[in-house]
Amino acid sequence: MKWWGWGEEDISFTHEDKPALGPFIKKALDLDVANVTSRRVAFGELSVPEPSLPAELRARLEAAVGEARVSTEPLDRVVHARGKSLRDLVNHRRGELGRLPDAVIRPGTEEELVAILQAALDLDAVVIPFGGGTSISGSLEASVSERRPIISVDVGRLDRVHDIDETSRLARVQAGVFGPHLEEQLNARGWTLGHLPDSFTHSTLGGWIATRSSGMQSDRTGDVADLTRGLRVVTPAGLLVTRPVPSTSTGPSVREMVLGSEGRLGIISEATVHVRRVAARRTILGYLLPGWAESLAAMRDIAASEASPSVTRVSDPNETGFSFATRKRPSVLDRIKSKGLEAYLRHRDFDVEQMCLGFIGYEGSERHVAKQRKVVGAIVARHGGLCIGASPGALYDQKKFDTPYIRDYLLDRGALADVSETAAPWSALPSVYGNVVAAARRAFDELDVRGYVMCHLSHSYHAGACLYFTFAIKPSGRRDGLEEYDVVKSAIQQAFVDSGATLSHHHGVGTEHARWLEEDISAPGVVMVRSLFEGMDPGANLNPGKIV
Amino acid sequence: MKWWGWGEEDISFTHEDKPALGPFIKKALDLDVANVTSRRVAFGELSVPEPSLPAELRARLEAAVGEARVSTEPLDRVVHARGKSLRDLVNHRRGELGRLPDAVIRPGTEEELVAILQAALDLDAVVIPFGGGTSISGSLEASVSERRPIISVDVGRLDRVHDIDETSRLARVQAGVFGPHLEEQLNARGWTLGHLPDSFTHSTLGGWIATRSSGMQSDRTGDVADLTRGLRVVTPAGLLVTRPVPSTSTGPSVREMVLGSEGRLGIISEATVHVRRVAARRTILGYLLPGWAESLAAMRDIAASEASPSVTRVSDPNETGFSFATRKRPSVLDRIKSKGLEAYLRHRDFDVEQMCLGFIGYEGSERHVAKQRKVVGAIVARHGGLCIGASPGALYDQKKFDTPYIRDYLLDRGALADVSETAAPWSALPSVYGNVVAAARRAFDELDVRGYVMCHLSHSYHAGACLYFTFAIKPSGRRDGLEEYDVVKSAIQQAFVDSGATLSHHHGVGTEHARWLEEDISAPGVVMVRSLFEGMDPGANLNPGKIV
Repeated sequence: MKWWGWGEEDISFTHEDKPALGPFIKKALDLDVANVTSRRVAFGELSVPEPSLPAELRARLEAAVGEARVSTEPLDRVVHARGKSLRDLVNHRRGELGRLPDAVIRPGTEEELVAILQAALDLDAVVIPFGGGTSISGSLEASVSERRPIISVDVGRLDRVHDIDETSRLARVQAGVFGPHLEEQLNARGWTLGHLPDSFTHSTLGGWIATRSSGMQSDRTGDVADLTRGLRVVTPAGLLVTRPVPSTSTGPSVREMVLGSEGRLGIISEATVHVRRVAARRTILGYLLPGWAESLAAMRDIAASEASPSVTRVSDPNETGFSFATRKRPSVLDRIKSKGLEAYLRHRDFDVEQMCLGFIGYEGSERHVAKQRKVVGAIVARHGGLCIGASPGALYDQKKFDTPYIRDYLLDRGALADVSETAAPWSALPSVYGNVVAAARRAFDELDVRGYVMCHLSHSYHAGACLYFTFAIKPSGRRDGLEEYDVVKSAIQQAFVDSGATLSHHHGVGTEHARWLEEDISAPGVVMVRSLFEGMDPGANLNPGKIV
Repeated sequence: MKWWGWGEEDISFTHEDKPALGPFIKKALDLDVANVTSRRVAFGELSVPEPSLPAELRARLEAAVGEARVSTEPLDRVVHARGKSLRDLVNHRRGELGRLPDAVIRPGTEEELVAILQAALDLDAVVIPFGGGTSISGSLEASVSERRPIISVDVGRLDRVHDIDETSRLARVQAGVFGPHLEEQLNARGWTLGHLPDSFTHSTLGGWIATRSSGMQSDRTGDVADLTRGLRVVTPAGLLVTRPVPSTSTGPSVREMVLGSEGRLGIISEATVHVRRVAARRTILGYLLPGWAESLAAMRDIAASEASPSVTRVSDPNETGFSFATRKRPSVLDRIKSKGLEAYLRHRDFDVEQMCLGFIGYEGSERHVAKQRKVVGAIVARHGGLCIGASPGALYDQKKFDTPYIRDYLLDRGALADVSETAAPWSALPSVYGNVVAAARRAFDELDVRGYVMCHLSHSYHAGACLYFTFAIKPSGRRDGLEEYDVVKSAIQQAFVDSGATLSHHHGVGTEHARWLEEDISAPGVVMVRSLFEGMDPGANLNPGKIV
């Protein structure tokens, strides 16, 4: 992971193979993509303070995991200081590193996790569990006022699939495994978890659990909360072990208390998760719908139907425009196809400005997929839409993990882009959407900046859906860009909670969303969460200050 | 509800229309069904102590709900003293009433709930929420050592469906509504919740939520935890309101903390729950399978298939024998059909002693139901089973809420019968089953009593299923019958947790199962639950002593 941005050092987003993107960005944000205006400071220029790791604590940690696994290297400490929120990226690029961890420690076994936590409790240090470091909610950064030693516990060596119970369709997996490595181990035996968050390539099973993650195919398999059965968590009260039973009535669910706990209760060591056989057939089809209202209605009807697609995603007109602008230079064949499609759309009186691009994914036997397609096709047609075949879906499927690189690309060009996502009942979605877009535009106007806001529906449920907003501004230069970002981000979050939606569908609370928590779950809800944290961690040694 | 037993005064179980039942019970328990040996004491003979309701508390409660809604009548206090566990029934029948509530109060609004709780907190009284009173886990009884005034809050007047959001397929419902009244209100508008626990006719939505209930059709609609979205709960920290969003990442789930809380966190006032359109077609088909191993394997394969039946239930050979023994006097047509079936079974080399009776339910459009039946039929056939048509399923469907009356019938005849249910991964089910049956039989032998144990798989999930055991003994007469019951019940519960299964799939913890909680959720899990309760209710005014 780059210390200053998303993903691998040798991968970055570019407009060069996307002829329509430059003009699109020029129009949307008044930004010349050829003009790189802002660069990160060089690593060598960073001012990295000396770690404050008392000798006794260092000795205990080294005894726990071995000297080589206790790092105080500047690069390690800088990488582990934060996640990848827009604020994190901007501050890191500026060389404003915040409160760095004093040590990064890499345990290889659950026993080592136990020893680390015991040392931290005995010597009053702070422990921050670290998976892939992709949090965009501020869940990984210590408070600048923290005076105790801070240990970032990087669980990346806990990366094995212990076993697959093929009868029960359950895999027992170490929590530090990254998405691709997990799927590789499962696929080798014909199985899959199928949990594919945007961060998939750089995030871990334990991180997904700690944030109540959701993936692109969660419509069919469920969110990580549904996929996770047994848990092993190293806590101040000892090793928490919940049984991998399919359902249980043992009081308030302890499993559900760990889900979303963002390191406040302990370090997740292992989980037993649902796996499925790799499907015989898997396909994602593209659809076009005449407008946003029709798109929401179609998705609602699909959720109410007897079909159970694996992916239900549809972009609003703004995001549809963006998607088309990121298409690569088309082949001759593509151009002919697309001319035909355009003629057809005109014939049907589609307003290309209002058009919405959707993706519906199917998984299962050939026969099952064919049936589902038929049911969905009829619903889409009823709402005035049409299927545009498998190639846009295949493209989406190939490129689905590349999106997070765009923020770094825009930062290089002086624009600030970020995402905010929520969930609400079907009946509330049109007003949530309207209120959020209006709030963002009001914020752009107040700040007098160029801004863009777009949205897709990313997951459907029985009673509602997730709306995922992306927004970007070109800061005015009259104040700190982060201040202007805050105004927009806050306006969107406030519109969520004011419209009956939740503060986050799957990104978590951390510090970024903590101020809206009480408005979402009400004051007694906050007391419940706080009671749980304080009872389990009376010394506030575990990732203090997050969530509440 | 009878003060001394299950259900309506004018309904009771009888062997008189079931010619095979008397001989069956004679063989299983050495009991002559014609011989009623044990009767409850008459209500007039009960020794009901005076209530201890301080004048100030009474005044506050009367101010809250009106004088007429504060009852200190003996019958009210006796009915509200306990649930309907076997222990509750035996003690009540004996006139051993335990610690009665000092008042039964019947609020009609959420505001009244708030006033009641405030009065109880101000004057240090104990509040025990009461829905239908069907708990069989001891969740409703106060401790005999409780010295504070005890108020049973009967929420039965909170019985309205406030509204149905037809777009989101969500209904906002008061928590005190009983199953039939809830369905009546929903059905009148073409909707259904479809949550059908055994206790359906006498239990409430709030009670289902407070115990993490599961229903007979939960395979398709989900358990009550899946059906419940928004909640309003009157707590010591104020009115808890969670939003009815389909999914959320707002830290540990507060919604899931209320589910299963058994009155320890507050009084549930209202819930927003999933509803569905009443299905065009609904059918439950009977199946016969050649043995228990084949039955478990078939159910597992159905859960892994692309079918999604609403009911998956199969009885072990002992319960199959019992089911056949409870058949009513057959018509001539039935006899001809059944002779044909018998001949067919013999021809297929079915061992009638090992045979298992299953029910699979289907819901949806005609076409959907037909497809599901075909998929399931092929799986059942692969495991050597066959479909025996719709009439056994229809009979099961009609009689499904009558089972709880059998315990009273057996108590009249001196036998003690009860149920214990659990859930475990598919791979563990054969050993869980074997261990439980062996443990029960060992207990019968140790006690030197006649006993019977039988089981059905009641719910299937991706990764496992619920096993529901029913057991009965004819006490020896050498010691207190409840002591002998305890030996058997404890042996079964211990076999659950020793076999990797959970202490309860849907009956809750209460006081009956509390001693196994730590073995199930581990010591840190108990600390988490306790932290939550103590943080929310520092004065232990809310149903103290339950769960932990």
